[in-house]
Amino acid sequence: MKKLILASTSTIYGSGYLEYLMEELAVFFADCSTITFIPYARPSGISHNEYTEKVRKAFNELGKKTIGLHEFESPMEAIRNAEALFTGGGNTFVLINQLYKFDLIQPLKEVVESGIPYLGTSAGSNICGLTINTTNDMPIVYPPSFKALSIVPFNINPHYLDPILNNKHMGETRETRINEFHHFNTQPVVGLREGNWIEVIDGNIRLKGQNQTRIFEYNKEPYEVESGSSINNLN
Amino acid sequence: MKKLILASTSTIYGSGYLEYLMEELAVFFADCSTITFIPYARPSGISHNEYTEKVRKAFNELGKKTIGLHEFESPMEAIRNAEALFTGGGNTFVLINQLYKFDLIQPLKEVVESGIPYLGTSAGSNICGLTINTTNDMPIVYPPSFKALSIVPFNINPHYLDPILNNKHMGETRETRINEFHHFNTQPVVGLREGNWIEVIDGNIRLKGQNQTRIFEYNKEPYEVESGSSINNLN
Repeated sequence: MKKLILASTSTIYGSGYLEYLMEELAVFFADCSTITFIPYARPSGISHNEYTEKVRKAFNELGKKTIGLHEFESPMEAIRNAEALFTGGGNTFVLINQLYKFDLIQPLKEVVESGIPYLGTSAGSNICGLTINTTNDMPIVYPPSFKALSIVPFNINPHYLDPILNNKHMGETRETRINEFHHFNTQPVVGLREGNWIEVIDGNIRLKGQNQTRIFEYNKEPYEVESGSSINNLN
Repeated sequence: MKKLILASTSTIYGSGYLEYLMEELAVFFADCSTITFIPYARPSGISHNEYTEKVRKAFNELGKKTIGLHEFESPMEAIRNAEALFTGGGNTFVLINQLYKFDLIQPLKEVVESGIPYLGTSAGSNICGLTINTTNDMPIVYPPSFKALSIVPFNINPHYLDPILNNKHMGETRETRINEFHHFNTQPVVGLREGNWIEVIDGNIRLKGQNQTRIFEYNKEPYEVESGSSINNLN
């Protein structure tokens, strides 16, 4: 039993927070009244409270109650008792570091694998892959490990970005970076463009959203997959 | 005694490898005949041999001999006996991981602090800061630590990039990322634009190159410093 939405981003250009996902989320969270929010990724360094307020406003529109994980005395108990979970974006290193610090990796994995609905955006999606080795974030803290929840059998690269034509900046393209990753690792990488998400329902992993998704498998040319396709057998 | 050039990039747009630095390097390496090259950062995953060949061609034009660190039986001995050093760019995590693996952090620091000329570009510059927490690279391997050589008393952000106007991509700007860094760390960060470098001569740390440099100090508005200025007293 699994039920996840792993989105590339919370916000698409020119639209409000989670706005493009709202119809989908109304169905996804239909049976839940309260969503436990994991605010640990702290985008722009905002506090857990500030971040939770932002999310609360968005979920209010769906008629859902939001509680921040930091509001509980025991985050572990809170995860074990959650009716639904949302992990927001921000810095993946900060997020996973905090999950390790509070020993939450294993409980979170167990709860999600038991079928509790889980929404992730950006860093919150990334941690459901095998490792965080394909994050785009700056490594501003040193976590005890890059190993992630391994709920899906591949790595995720959120905010996947195509090479920019005529770019004069000499930093590596995203594709070059993922290619470098495959010199040291063999697992597949799902390059999730903004506006796209991965839907996991029990054993079925499906791509959704407005764009194609770029898949990187070890020792293979990267390729595009249409929205609506399943990706249950990446190598 | 110290003598370093820490460049943002090896290559500026529309120009050959190290080309924009060649005049500077002719003077910098004037007293050396052989340069020991550290190829560990493996840009695009190229091999140590391939990378060393590329560098050899560039230094041939200066009449210098290049030896790759991987060509020695003992990289530690090679560093201790080097006449001059160059660490090229690529992936900072791969580079520092290899330096830790071969116990080279301390010997490299000692040799550079004894006055052996050291050139770094991109990742090769980054490792001379306090930590690699402000790299832009993808964390494709997990190093034993993010602690770096601490030869300069600040962190470096190479390839520093100004926010792109009207960008529709929702990833964080570089300034946002460095701001997030300062929620968890207090050391200054030097945002080194492409075409710029840091010159260290004994106790004097000076900015050089075609652009201004953006300085990020903890709890302070970021500010610009002109090329030619010393940055000996960042807080």
